[in-house]
Amino acid sequence: MPATVALLTDFNTTDTYVGVMKGVIQTICPAAQMIDLTHAISPQNIRQGAFALLNAYRYFPAGTVFLVVVDPGVGSLRRPVAVQAGDYFFVGPDNGVLSYALAGLDIQARVILNNPNYHLNVVSQTFHGRDIFAPAAAHLAAGVPISELGEKSAQLVDFELPELGFENDMLQAEVAHIDHFGNIITSIGALTWLDDQQLCLKPTFGSIDHSLVVDSKAVSVFVNEYRLEGIKQMYSAGNPGEMMVTVGSNGYLEIAINQGNCAARMGTLIGDSVRVAL
Amino acid sequence: MPATVALLTDFNTTDTYVGVMKGVIQTICPAAQMIDLTHAISPQNIRQGAFALLNAYRYFPAGTVFLVVVDPGVGSLRRPVAVQAGDYFFVGPDNGVLSYALAGLDIQARVILNNPNYHLNVVSQTFHGRDIFAPAAAHLAAGVPISELGEKSAQLVDFELPELGFENDMLQAEVAHIDHFGNIITSIGALTWLDDQQLCLKPTFGSIDHSLVVDSKAVSVFVNEYRLEGIKQMYSAGNPGEMMVTVGSNGYLEIAINQGNCAARMGTLIGDSVRVAL
Amino acid sequence: MPATVALLTDFNTTDTYVGVMKGVIQTICPAAQMIDLTHAISPQNIRQGAFALLNAYRYFPAGTVFLVVVDPGVGSLRRPVAVQAGDYFFVGPDNGVLSYALAGLDIQARVILNNPNYHLNVVSQTFHGRDIFAPAAAHLAAGVPISELGEKSAQLVDFELPELGFENDMLQAEVAHIDHFGNIITSIGALTWLDDQQLCLKPTFGSIDHSLVVDSKAVSVFVNEYRLEGIKQMYSAGNPGEMMVTVGSNGYLEIAINQGNCAARMGTLIGDSVRVAL
Repeated sequence: MPATVALLTDFNTTDTYVGVMKGVIQTICPAAQMIDLTHAISPQNIRQGAFALLNAYRYFPAGTVFLVVVDPGVGSLRRPVAVQAGDYFFVGPDNGVLSYALAGLDIQARVILNNPNYHLNVVSQTFHGRDIFAPAAAHLAAGVPISELGEKSAQLVDFELPELGFENDMLQAEVAHIDHFGNIITSIGALTWLDDQQLCLKPTFGSIDHSLVVDSKAVSVFVNEYRLEGIKQMYSAGNPGEMMVTVGSNGYLEIAINQGNCAARMGTLIGDSVRVAL
Repeated sequence: MPATVALLTDFNTTDTYVGVMKGVIQTICPAAQMIDLTHAISPQNIRQGAFALLNAYRYFPAGTVFLVVVDPGVGSLRRPVAVQAGDYFFVGPDNGVLSYALAGLDIQARVILNNPNYHLNVVSQTFHGRDIFAPAAAHLAAGVPISELGEKSAQLVDFELPELGFENDMLQAEVAHIDHFGNIITSIGALTWLDDQQLCLKPTFGSIDHSLVVDSKAVSVFVNEYRLEGIKQMYSAGNPGEMMVTVGSNGYLEIAINQGNCAARMGTLIGDSVRVAL
Repeated sequence: MPATVALLTDFNTTDTYVGVMKGVIQTICPAAQMIDLTHAISPQNIRQGAFALLNAYRYFPAGTVFLVVVDPGVGSLRRPVAVQAGDYFFVGPDNGVLSYALAGLDIQARVILNNPNYHLNVVSQTFHGRDIFAPAAAHLAAGVPISELGEKSAQLVDFELPELGFENDMLQAEVAHIDHFGNIITSIGALTWLDDQQLCLKPTFGSIDHSLVVDSKAVSVFVNEYRLEGIKQMYSAGNPGEMMVTVGSNGYLEIAINQGNCAARMGTLIGDSVRVAL
């Protein structure tokens, strides 16, 4: 079975950086199946990359190598690493970009990519994606044992998690992501419907260590200067143009407009505060 | 021979939605060759998606599965479907996005994707691309008979076609698409050159049920406040910067500027009226 | 081993042009591995395409076919060509877009793509990427000898190289590229570090026919109205927000801001003059 390499970067595809990394991978592991997760992480936004990876990795086949390069510290002392966790491999800088995904997985091995035999012959100080990370991902995809790539790493950098907690009887959260459609994805999740009216909230982030039962009709959501009532089951339950609250495809509470761009209308930005009265 | 899955969506690639769909496909059908047709259909623009698919599908190998997700009604009563037609398979919402392509093909089978054995285990109300459509496309690519995916569908939704007809001795048409170069693609086609001066017009859309012979030198084209004379054989027959009329690569009458952006200069939008005096 | 086809165009991916070319390739050569170098070359910018190809091709496996379509003269007298050079094949219009890469390679064969057996059945005057270039690339990937594709070509069009020379004791160069991060890539290269302070400059372009030793601490770089002192070893050697000079991943002198967009801050455009006092 061909090994899958899934790529997640902030390189965009307007330059040839991503294409060149794929050329390197193809050279080392001709059988690799390469899949772009996205290359549109905002430049150097580690947290956005971490959140994207967290919500995507579980849809890939066992054995997938995730090549994650959001690397503001390229060339500095931050360490390039590879991690084997759950059914997957992760390759990237040790700056926290892997930490959201790794938090939920059983880590089996972690190494620093300091074996030069698995680097390109010439390593630049500005493009470790091409010179160190892509070769490491390709060698893993080709079956090289992770222990060959470098020495064991004792610990990895964790990264500040999105906010989720209680304060003054209200759920305090934040905007974790805004997607291409303008849907506002909050840090409140994972939510699952128990029946037509009630949901179970089993927090992914933050300080709440138990599950909650939420009444979809009793909920008020406050974001920017807006107050929205109730949680609907799907976008199309909202009238076109109407702001509404729903549960997004990854289980997060989501604020959206059916067939419209909610974030643009509300002027919402990632990191904005979201409060929920249950 | 590996099965090809061609993807056409309005998801853009700034989020991981497309990457996640590919992860799902790769998990179910590791041998699938995935090709992006485009993910830049304007959000929820069914008609733009239908037009793009119509002009692209015939360039793919027999057996290709087209995964088409432009789905403003996700989670509502619109039905998810798969269709076998001509040498191809089409998977998507039954909202008309497949209808332009299917109009010219011999339909062999059509099913509603209501067999949960071919869905992901958990189906969200907001991302059927991942939970229903991608799995269906992957199972078809892996050789599962279409009849396994759900029960037969009696009929499919058709979608309003681009305008093309005669009125007051003039061809009444519209702007069907504007491409990245700013070329204005009209609903007038298919045109083929008979010789250096004459063209045959065999209408794809609208109310004209016979072919016409068109004299390229006698034609006047009216769009926005502009009037252009004659049809040129190629872009480079126009002087750089000059507005001109030609026949585009899919046989539609096209208004362009050699090495320039015509739509930006003219202020043209999709749906604008185009009239032609023959 | 599957043959790799690497695609470089100015088509963008908002239309289906790239997807359709891939459908054509997949039909002709089902085993081809297609990799996007980039499709975001500025419309009709031959020079930008040539520079991108020059800096990317060497990272691909031997046997890779580069399909390069930046083609303002489509349909005119410019010739469609295929070239075998070094370990690679190159397919594209003979307008100079291949010339930067070919300048450094041993050319083994060059042909005009005038054998209609290797075109699509119907050839448009507006989309040779689909009708002539993609089929040629696919046939090469499938093992068809290059001599089958058409008759020998005596010579190819060369293209004006980026500027690099001496004037008034200063290195006169220009901005060759600006990347997605806003890093300003100059025509000064290739630079390699000899030790912590000194670099070797072995000019890729221009009128300097010998290598120079450059003292990183003695250098002053002038671009737009800015003057920057010294060359740093990596981005992270600059304070966040500070304009700095470094050596980019392809060996060119690069002007950047650690974790910032330098070109936007400076108002720099491709082609702007860069002067260096050594």
